[in-house]
Amino acid sequence: SNMSHEIALKRLNMLKGHFRPSKDLKRELSTSTFNLSKAQESLWNTLPANYFETFECISELHGIPDPSLYNAEKDELRKDSNEFIIRLTNKMFEKGFTTPEKIAENIDAFNSGMISLGSFNFATCTRYLVQYGLYCKTIKNLGTERHHQELIDGCSLKTLGCFGLTEMGHGSNVRGIEITATYDKTTKEFILNSPTKTAIKFWIGALAKSAHNAVIFAQLYINENGQKVRKGVHAFVLPIRDRMTHTSFPGVEIGDCGYKKGLNGIDNGWIKFEDYRIPRESLLNRFADVTEDGVYQTAIESEGKRFGNSMSSLSGGRVFISRMSSEISLQSLSIAIRYAAVRRQFGPSDEETLLLDYPLHQYRLFTRFAEHFVHYLGANRLVKMWDKNLPKLLDEGNEQTEVIHALSSSMKAFVSWSSQSTIDECRKACGGHGYSFYSLFANILNFNDLHATWEGDSHVLTMQNQKFILNGIRKALKGKKVPETLEYLSLAQTTPPAFKGDFENIDELAKLFAQRASFLANKAAKALNEYEGGFEQGFLDLQSFELKDMSSAYHDNYCIETFRAFLTTVDDESVRSIFEKLLLLNFYTKMHNDGNFFVAALGLSQFEKLKKHINKSLKHLRKNIILLTQVLPFPERSMGALGHGDLQVYDRYLQHIKACKGVTERASWWKLAYTNSEQKN
Amino acid sequence: SNMSHEIALKRLNMLKGHFRPSKDLKRELSTSTFNLSKAQESLWNTLPANYFETFECISELHGIPDPSLYNAEKDELRKDSNEFIIRLTNKMFEKGFTTPEKIAENIDAFNSGMISLGSFNFATCTRYLVQYGLYCKTIKNLGTERHHQELIDGCSLKTLGCFGLTEMGHGSNVRGIEITATYDKTTKEFILNSPTKTAIKFWIGALAKSAHNAVIFAQLYINENGQKVRKGVHAFVLPIRDRMTHTSFPGVEIGDCGYKKGLNGIDNGWIKFEDYRIPRESLLNRFADVTEDGVYQTAIESEGKRFGNSMSSLSGGRVFISRMSSEISLQSLSIAIRYAAVRRQFGPSDEETLLLDYPLHQYRLFTRFAEHFVHYLGANRLVKMWDKNLPKLLDEGNEQTEVIHALSSSMKAFVSWSSQSTIDECRKACGGHGYSFYSLFANILNFNDLHATWEGDSHVLTMQNQKFILNGIRKALKGKKVPETLEYLSLAQTTPPAFKGDFENIDELAKLFAQRASFLANKAAKALNEYEGGFEQGFLDLQSFELKDMSSAYHDNYCIETFRAFLTTVDDESVRSIFEKLLLLNFYTKMHNDGNFFVAALGLSQFEKLKKHINKSLKHLRKNIILLTQVLPFPERSMGALGHGDLQVYDRYLQHIKACKGVTERASWWKLAYTNSEQKN
Ligand SMILES: Cc1cc2nc3c(=O)[nH]c(=O)nc-3n(C[C@H](O)[C@H](O)[C@H](O)COP(=O)(O)OP(=O)(O)OC[C@H]3O[C@@H](n4cnc5c(N)ncnc54)[C@H](O)[C@@H]3O)c2cc1C
Ligand SMILES: Cc1cc2nc3c(=O)[nH]c(=O)nc-3n(C[C@H](O)[C@H](O)[C@H](O)COP(=O)(O)OP(=O)(O)OC[C@H]3O[C@@H](n4cnc5c(N)ncnc54)[C@H](O)[C@@H]3O)c2cc1C
Repeated sequence: SNMSHEIALKRLNMLKGHFRPSKDLKRELSTSTFNLSKAQESLWNTLPANYFETFECISELHGIPDPSLYNAEKDELRKDSNEFIIRLTNKMFEKGFTTPEKIAENIDAFNSGMISLGSFNFATCTRYLVQYGLYCKTIKNLGTERHHQELIDGCSLKTLGCFGLTEMGHGSNVRGIEITATYDKTTKEFILNSPTKTAIKFWIGALAKSAHNAVIFAQLYINENGQKVRKGVHAFVLPIRDRMTHTSFPGVEIGDCGYKKGLNGIDNGWIKFEDYRIPRESLLNRFADVTEDGVYQTAIESEGKRFGNSMSSLSGGRVFISRMSSEISLQSLSIAIRYAAVRRQFGPSDEETLLLDYPLHQYRLFTRFAEHFVHYLGANRLVKMWDKNLPKLLDEGNEQTEVIHALSSSMKAFVSWSSQSTIDECRKACGGHGYSFYSLFANILNFNDLHATWEGDSHVLTMQNQKFILNGIRKALKGKKVPETLEYLSLAQTTPPAFKGDFENIDELAKLFAQRASFLANKAAKALNEYEGGFEQGFLDLQSFELKDMSSAYHDNYCIETFRAFLTTVDDESVRSIFEKLLLLNFYTKMHNDGNFFVAALGLSQFEKLKKHINKSLKHLRKNIILLTQVLPFPERSMGALGHGDLQVYDRYLQHIKACKGVTERASWWKLAYTNSEQKN
Repeated sequence: SNMSHEIALKRLNMLKGHFRPSKDLKRELSTSTFNLSKAQESLWNTLPANYFETFECISELHGIPDPSLYNAEKDELRKDSNEFIIRLTNKMFEKGFTTPEKIAENIDAFNSGMISLGSFNFATCTRYLVQYGLYCKTIKNLGTERHHQELIDGCSLKTLGCFGLTEMGHGSNVRGIEITATYDKTTKEFILNSPTKTAIKFWIGALAKSAHNAVIFAQLYINENGQKVRKGVHAFVLPIRDRMTHTSFPGVEIGDCGYKKGLNGIDNGWIKFEDYRIPRESLLNRFADVTEDGVYQTAIESEGKRFGNSMSSLSGGRVFISRMSSEISLQSLSIAIRYAAVRRQFGPSDEETLLLDYPLHQYRLFTRFAEHFVHYLGANRLVKMWDKNLPKLLDEGNEQTEVIHALSSSMKAFVSWSSQSTIDECRKACGGHGYSFYSLFANILNFNDLHATWEGDSHVLTMQNQKFILNGIRKALKGKKVPETLEYLSLAQTTPPAFKGDFENIDELAKLFAQRASFLANKAAKALNEYEGGFEQGFLDLQSFELKDMSSAYHDNYCIETFRAFLTTVDDESVRSIFEKLLLLNFYTKMHNDGNFFVAALGLSQFEKLKKHINKSLKHLRKNIILLTQVLPFPERSMGALGHGDLQVYDRYLQHIKACKGVTERASWWKLAYTNSEQKN
């Protein structure tokens, strides 16, 4: 962002509201040891562009409800998410922050700001990603000049679009989709058909009720010498609803996927085609085209390569998910931590003990705070890498695209898996009140859960990351330069590393983690090469063990290295010191949670001492933890009823409860209570 | 149950419907190696009484929707859960299965059947537990002859009741509740008051809209020599709503807790008292009473002991939760496993690979299947222990009550924690379709999540279990007999055990786990005794490490021992062999997941070999896994759209989707899509 941090700070603080200095808050802040605004400055520097502008626009919209007060039926939620994106986008146009043309220039820059919407309302955020990140971006990346107006109409929201890749039967293996697009040169049209039940496009966001248009991926068939020849998966952009009636055209059947575990504010739908004809120009023809008389033309010979190209812009989704997922973990942790600074249970009868003073509670929350803080920095860096690489994404021989693909795959997988268990822990750490809708955990969990599945199943993505590392090993063995993020392979660690270093020394610990990543990579490669059933079978059989360990260690190393680089940008001593403590705690817990590796690496007696290091770190963080939640740039309205910065828990919670419709009214079905007894009247 | 297994089998199979022999099902069953009905016989023998009777009654009720088709608004869900319990109970009366008097005799026997309802509809199941397990049972356990009619009215559903223990400010530490009941001898009444915001009773199930009566726990105050003297927490039973209008009485304010993460079919409510007067006889006076002129009388001197007595029947809830939680994990696993026997993704293009054939997928699902199968047996045994002990629950010096308290505490905690991550894994193993409401995972997860919190927070319960074990060590040291489930302490293992045994030998492996439990108990006791900050501080500081390990090893040992005892009851060789395989796999994964302990116990090279043992077990289970899901006694309607035994996944799923209201209709708000463009008409 070009905005100065002062302005950013002011804007955010405006959104944050004023923290009335409650007794609890005063007590908590009195023990802090670092400078808040310096810490914010360092952290906010790593945020994506547009982050604060987006919040500013939101703050100017009226009638946007606090998400924790906002529970409605599916249909209403969908209406609201559509309305929200239209109003917000129009506000951005109105304020001159952007124009449809500017968005079309750099869709991701626009989107990466929009994803901060996540903490307001996940359905709205998803609605944005569908419209811009999936629909518009595919037109832009796979289309040509011919599709420019369609792109602009998408960016201006004249056209609402959706992105139809997944089918009932194919999600991870989208090369196996079944919908066919057959070229008919007599009419110069493609004919779309869904030949089977499993060919129905399924899960398509914004399809069920909103979209005018769809990007549809289908198997392209061309008539060559009287034979229908399959040319692989291609994308088309086409109208699906009649703009007069907003109902689907003949030959198109559209339906609702119904209720979901979460995100009911998005109208996911299914679509079935029967001899539906679309013009030749519908084909997004950047990498391949069909001439009027039905000749297939492409500069890229390999079908696999063409398919890869058409998928490569999807990495962006994974980049954003990594960020969102680490962000909502920190959001959840902030809620639970703030609640624990007010909630008391057991202990001396005059004043019971604060949950935050129980070492167990500290362990449950602070170790995870450290973990996700480290993830957060890793994700912010990844967003910047993505933005920088975007203009040359599809350039021939651009190795960076491959790096980002592999890195975003492991980040998305490992970050969102660990976030899931963290958010669940936060829910539980708030006891019964964490089960209330008003605490926000239900929404957050249901949103994060999805991150393991959409934009590529996380296990399948991890395998892509594994192939990248294995490739890196081959390069390293041949003495070639290894790609970014794999520098540790040059350590060529083939024997288990042993640590005799200092547990307070970040550099030494980081080296151990790099050695671990190198060792585990070489171990996995060796196991694969020597595998009895052969490499292919080994790749399947070793998934749960060696190969997973290898990717996980890669992920750890990337996050640690990113954090160390970040530390060098922090000038303020007090701030650097507290951030270092977070990294140290993260080292200790990672080691303690992976006895399979670290018992041997540290030796049993050093390993046992980790507990002491952890407890010591917890005690130190205890003094700073509430101020640390203030370093995060989340607006107050994303903190639910229990987590506002003023630590006024019970009053706000009661207000939320009492705002619920019909709270003290008699139910319409009250007479049911008298089925087995007489009503006395 | 007295019913012969043949009848049970018939009844259940009737409920299960007929499995049309699909291609997938035939293929799966063709590789099985064990006798299904023998396996069912062995397993079903361990089930609680009433299990099948309950299902039979349900099958005779009409209009009970398939839970996976059933999504409605909070208000409607609540109506339905009330209606369901009334109709079902009346059906049981009608068929002569029971009477209100018989239920009152043995409430838990009735309830333990009812909990099988869980797999149909969690809100209904909870509604039962509130009415019978909490409201009626408290009257029975803490009341006297004087309250008999109230009890019968509860059992017959003439009175709908609720159970008010938790307050806004106190859940785990209920001894700290704030509501006061002050005796006024001039009118011979107690006066109820909620002095603060945190004193509001909160989360009380069935309070918001349904209940006529409440059991309310309050601090009892008596006037003694002109002084108001606190006598501690006592329970009262009282009417809260006017039976003429079903609105609350003056002095009573009742409200709704609003939306929750799950279980919205239960009307949790809050209640506030202001000078609300109730007759002297409202006091449930089994352990203490107040005479007409206001003299407090009790045979139990210690306030702590009185409080303990009034809470002890609550262990029943934890017993049931252990069972429900292991049951719904197996239910979830069955769904995911059956889906994986149909779903194909990637692989050869003529026929893609079944998910069930991917070793990673096997690892994700089968290791957990083994784990929860072992839990399930442990929980079934616990239910039987509970039932047997019930008549002498509060007998002076009955050690078994203490054993069950400690055991149900650890079972509830460890089973429901691990279930949570298992159900989440099952959701993810089904990919996008697992995120559909119709797969049932959302409901199951949200229900199970609660198990960590209600009926006593699981961390707090674990501490109770720890105290029991530490006490056991003291007994063992003094040469006294140790209580049931702690027999392993006699091994007096003070040095880390080393295993040189046979990895196929269950007895030897079980011994290792017993030694581990003994060692970790002694290690924790030693760490506590030597703790610098003293025992009390140590008890807090060592929660996340030594003490948790101690309880977790206790839990493992109990489940393993229960399973071994179960194996001796299995006559059929083929069945015993497959059950043994499950236990072995459970040993291997437990060891591999706890490198902190087992790297040293096995030595690194044996530890590394665990992976091979796991892979071998997975391959063997692969052949039997679908038949294993048939051994479980779950009715088809609890298997959601993806998990029926006939393995007809896509057809049923599409039916479910298409049954959703308004599936292909235009949304009411469709014109919104034309905000930024003109509608063409
Ligand atoms: C709410 C929601 C919104 C969505 N929005 C859209 C949208 O707008 N547009 C769109 O096109 N799609 C959308 N999707 C679809 C989404 O992208 C897919 O669900 C996702 O790609 C996963 O595919 P799948 O569901 O077919 O899972 P599957 O591929 O069937 O995977 C199921 C399980 O099998 C495992 N598995 C798969 N392959 C292997 C293997 N080789 N080895 C081992 N294990 C394997 C996976 O780990 C997974 O656990 C959406 C989905 C949801 C739930
Ligand atoms: C849907 C629902 C239905 C319910 N129904 C009823 C009902 O019908 N009747 C009724 O009376 N109650 C009911 N409850 C209340 C329930 O029993 C309580 O929520 C439960 O006992 C936990 O108490 P709490 O919520 O106050 O959590 P707290 O006690 O505030 O615990 C919060 C967190 O602090 C931690 N913690 C607490 N003490 C310690 C300690 N000493 N050391 C370390 N950590 C600690 C816990 O582990 C937990 O994570 C219901 C709750 C829910 C959510």
